[in-house]
Amino acid sequence: MSRTLTGVGVSPGAGYGPAYVVGDAVPPPPPGERHGGDAGAETGRALRALERVAADLQELGEHAGGEGRDVLEAQAMMARDPDLGDEVARLVRAGSSAARAVYEGFGGYRRMLAAAGGYLAARVADLDDVRDRVIAVLAGRPVSRVPAGAAEPYVLVARDLAPADTVLLSPDTVAAFVTEEGGPTSHTAIIARAMGVPAVVACPGAAAVPAGVPVLVDGTSGRVRLEPSAEELAGARRADTARRALLARATGPGATSDGHAVPLLANIGGPKDVAGALEHGAEGVGLYRTELLFLGRAQAPSVEEQEAAYRRVLEAFPGRQVIVRTLDAGADKPLAFLPPPGEEPNPALGERGARLLRLHPEVLAAQLTALARAAAGSSARLAVMAPMVSTAEEAAWFAAACRKAGLPSAGIMIEVPSAALRAADLAAEADFFSVGTNDLAQYAFAADRQVGALTALHDPWQPALLDLVAAAVAGAAGRGRPCGVCGEAAADPVLACVLVGLGATSLSMGASALPAVRAALARHSLEQCVLAARAARSAASPAEARTAARAHLPGVADQGL
Amino acid sequence: MSRTLTGVGVSPGAGYGPAYVVGDAVPPPPPGERHGGDAGAETGRALRALERVAADLQELGEHAGGEGRDVLEAQAMMARDPDLGDEVARLVRAGSSAARAVYEGFGGYRRMLAAAGGYLAARVADLDDVRDRVIAVLAGRPVSRVPAGAAEPYVLVARDLAPADTVLLSPDTVAAFVTEEGGPTSHTAIIARAMGVPAVVACPGAAAVPAGVPVLVDGTSGRVRLEPSAEELAGARRADTARRALLARATGPGATSDGHAVPLLANIGGPKDVAGALEHGAEGVGLYRTELLFLGRAQAPSVEEQEAAYRRVLEAFPGRQVIVRTLDAGADKPLAFLPPPGEEPNPALGERGARLLRLHPEVLAAQLTALARAAAGSSARLAVMAPMVSTAEEAAWFAAACRKAGLPSAGIMIEVPSAALRAADLAAEADFFSVGTNDLAQYAFAADRQVGALTALHDPWQPALLDLVAAAVAGAAGRGRPCGVCGEAAADPVLACVLVGLGATSLSMGASALPAVRAALARHSLEQCVLAARAARSAASPAEARTAARAHLPGVADQGL
Repeated sequence: MSRTLTGVGVSPGAGYGPAYVVGDAVPPPPPGERHGGDAGAETGRALRALERVAADLQELGEHAGGEGRDVLEAQAMMARDPDLGDEVARLVRAGSSAARAVYEGFGGYRRMLAAAGGYLAARVADLDDVRDRVIAVLAGRPVSRVPAGAAEPYVLVARDLAPADTVLLSPDTVAAFVTEEGGPTSHTAIIARAMGVPAVVACPGAAAVPAGVPVLVDGTSGRVRLEPSAEELAGARRADTARRALLARATGPGATSDGHAVPLLANIGGPKDVAGALEHGAEGVGLYRTELLFLGRAQAPSVEEQEAAYRRVLEAFPGRQVIVRTLDAGADKPLAFLPPPGEEPNPALGERGARLLRLHPEVLAAQLTALARAAAGSSARLAVMAPMVSTAEEAAWFAAACRKAGLPSAGIMIEVPSAALRAADLAAEADFFSVGTNDLAQYAFAADRQVGALTALHDPWQPALLDLVAAAVAGAAGRGRPCGVCGEAAADPVLACVLVGLGATSLSMGASALPAVRAALARHSLEQCVLAARAARSAASPAEARTAARAHLPGVADQGL
Repeated sequence: MSRTLTGVGVSPGAGYGPAYVVGDAVPPPPPGERHGGDAGAETGRALRALERVAADLQELGEHAGGEGRDVLEAQAMMARDPDLGDEVARLVRAGSSAARAVYEGFGGYRRMLAAAGGYLAARVADLDDVRDRVIAVLAGRPVSRVPAGAAEPYVLVARDLAPADTVLLSPDTVAAFVTEEGGPTSHTAIIARAMGVPAVVACPGAAAVPAGVPVLVDGTSGRVRLEPSAEELAGARRADTARRALLARATGPGATSDGHAVPLLANIGGPKDVAGALEHGAEGVGLYRTELLFLGRAQAPSVEEQEAAYRRVLEAFPGRQVIVRTLDAGADKPLAFLPPPGEEPNPALGERGARLLRLHPEVLAAQLTALARAAAGSSARLAVMAPMVSTAEEAAWFAAACRKAGLPSAGIMIEVPSAALRAADLAAEADFFSVGTNDLAQYAFAADRQVGALTALHDPWQPALLDLVAAAVAGAAGRGRPCGVCGEAAADPVLACVLVGLGATSLSMGASALPAVRAALARHSLEQCVLAARAARSAASPAEARTAARAHLPGVADQGL
């Protein structure tokens, strides 16, 4: 094996530790495996294992909070599905061992989910994880694939990682991530950036790294060095220490080296994320995703309940901006009380976001009322924006709804190409824009974010995506409207400088990315950012764009960003 | 009832006749309806009705040919599904009447299809049509909802129409179409334009028009007049006669009034469409969709079989251009020998078109070889283009594959927004472009073409779509490459002038649209087209764009286009 592997660095910094190699899935129990003869006892074993896994997942979810909690609670519900339990019991009565019955029982469930398509089909991997956990319990093997604690931080190496693998990890446990699959917007990349831990993805040969081998990971260059020399290690540690010191010194409001102010804001999912945002120096909230309040409810939460949640966030940012996105539901994120009106062969292209709210004006009106009431007693500057707006006509409709609710500022997410292209028309209707680069890339390249093979098309350095950001910014500027960026792109320190060079007026990101972005901006003038943006847009591929921009941003190399 | 209804005119001209109102679906047989007691005889009745409908649909499909055939043959297979037959027999044995058993038997099938999502879920309407036909046969009612012949041509009025409703209709039978639902790209609009029959869609109140009432339909203005006066009728007929005479006089190569040549080409699905293309004066083929050769096969057709089909088309156009699109398959148009590599929650955003061919290079190589061989003995100017290209890198890959096969000209479809935005980069790799406005609109607006409620976003007059066409044309022109348009937009005579004003170098459309487009172009100078294009792009909505463009194109009003 080569001593150096090369992948795509997606979370900067240096990490070092022994490789902890996550194996592939638990092998299925052999077909025809039978129990000893006591069907009653074997059924009990199977049902207890299902319940134990359900309880573990639920507890894990409660510890994790946030979006991780929702995923793990859904998994717990799968393990507790009564039809599944009945089917497992039936198979055991027919002679199957508990493990085999669980395997086959999940098989039927799995086929059903896969056949259902859309959102449900995408949950098959979560279901398999539940099944493997139950089989591991029955075999007396450790349940989790990933150790939650260790004597020293390890480098987590895997083909790819699932939410349940990563939800309880911390920077104290994991020194770095390396995965053979994935891309800049994969689950691993997002988690690593959120934890502030270095990560390299799309790294050929990673899954074959021997367990326990010392590994040095450079999350900036994408280099993964096996058994580095003491000298290499010392060099990397010195660089990383310097980088961390630099980040620690980067405080205060976001600005370029020549004083061009760029407010650095946090993306949050609810009040629980406020502490992290403040800790990393967020100057406000650039994207408050409100879905968590609504998920798993039979009815929309009351105006009072919503008002209380919004107030908790507003109170944490006195005098600061807080941008709230109204409910973004659709066939890909279904809510019981907001069903999409028909069959949707392509949920991502269906009646989601603002389109769905327009069919349920009472849900939007209640949310806007709750927001207006929460803002009434607060000094925070509340702004509200709608997801999935694609025309000026839709923007006008949303702005009118906000005005009717007494809200002072109505904006829109720019995440559909037509909205970016006609930004000047939309800016006549809306007060501000926020570019969501993830969905914008999905539509601009007609490439599903959920399809791993299309990862290269979601590279936020794709010149066509930069063109759309430039179009949105230009349309907004023509009317004197601000246009921020709140997608994954804003969390990449180099790309953040390019976005500022394109004219983005604020950047919003997962809070842990704020220090590196703040440091990168502080090292470059606005002119350098503009030149970097121009160079990136002149390139014909994402790799060329990245290289061309870096040439104008010398400070990012110094910092190892 | 108001005497005038107003909808969206989607196929120009005047049509007059008695209203033939297509009723809504056949009512379900009452729950619990039981047969007289002879289960054997009743089962026979049910199975014979299924077979009769299957045979009718198959025969209808053979008459229809083309894409209609594929839809109807798939429906015949549904009626012959052995599991469905078994289930119906079981329900009859349990006492159900034949009609009720058919209704319930289809219900299970329906739930399965709906749950399967994607392409299959979109077939639920076809399945319902089969079910209703079988129930109609059992009740001794007429099977078809639409009479294939009548004493005088009728105006077909319906909530909406299905493929089987329209496949055997001809301009001798139908004077005009009026539907309450649908939009400019709905099935009815496409069929009406293909037949050259006036049509108004999205027309509130249409479904309540009383049967037999005389109706005058203006497919240009979208006005539907009930019981018109003799004077109104005579006026409309005079205008229509003048319009038809004008179209008949519009012959020769496509050009503006000042002689700017714009080759007018036909979209075809195979050799069977060649006669219609020649009859309407097509100067060549702008889009030869090759999917029909591949559909319903367990294996790809041999190089020899493909070569023969391609040769038949090339031989019909000696000295002319024939642009062939390579196979465009994906999870939404599945082929047995080209399965998409994984689950696709959004097939339209998945591994389709060029992406899928790249995973199966042998299929592409065979097609390119067959094309090169067919061209070898022909004077037609063969050009080949790839669907669903989104980056310069993909364009370079396709051009290399064409060069390797010895093909002289390799182009790409511009149907993904990123390809239009980066057209200059793509033009460095490809020899020509052809803009597919239908898919381009779907992605630019993130709006599924299959979702009726999103029809307004597919309006080809959307200014954002015109911006993307302009970007594609500008990118091509910078390298001296031609850029045509082959989507539905090119078939609208007014929009065709705008596309020429944007710089489109050729227009390709269903052959029956050619005379009207030729006439519209011949009445306007290139400068008028440029001014109309500029005015349309300055508008903020499709309606404003249409009005603004028309103001610069006075000839289209004269012609009733």
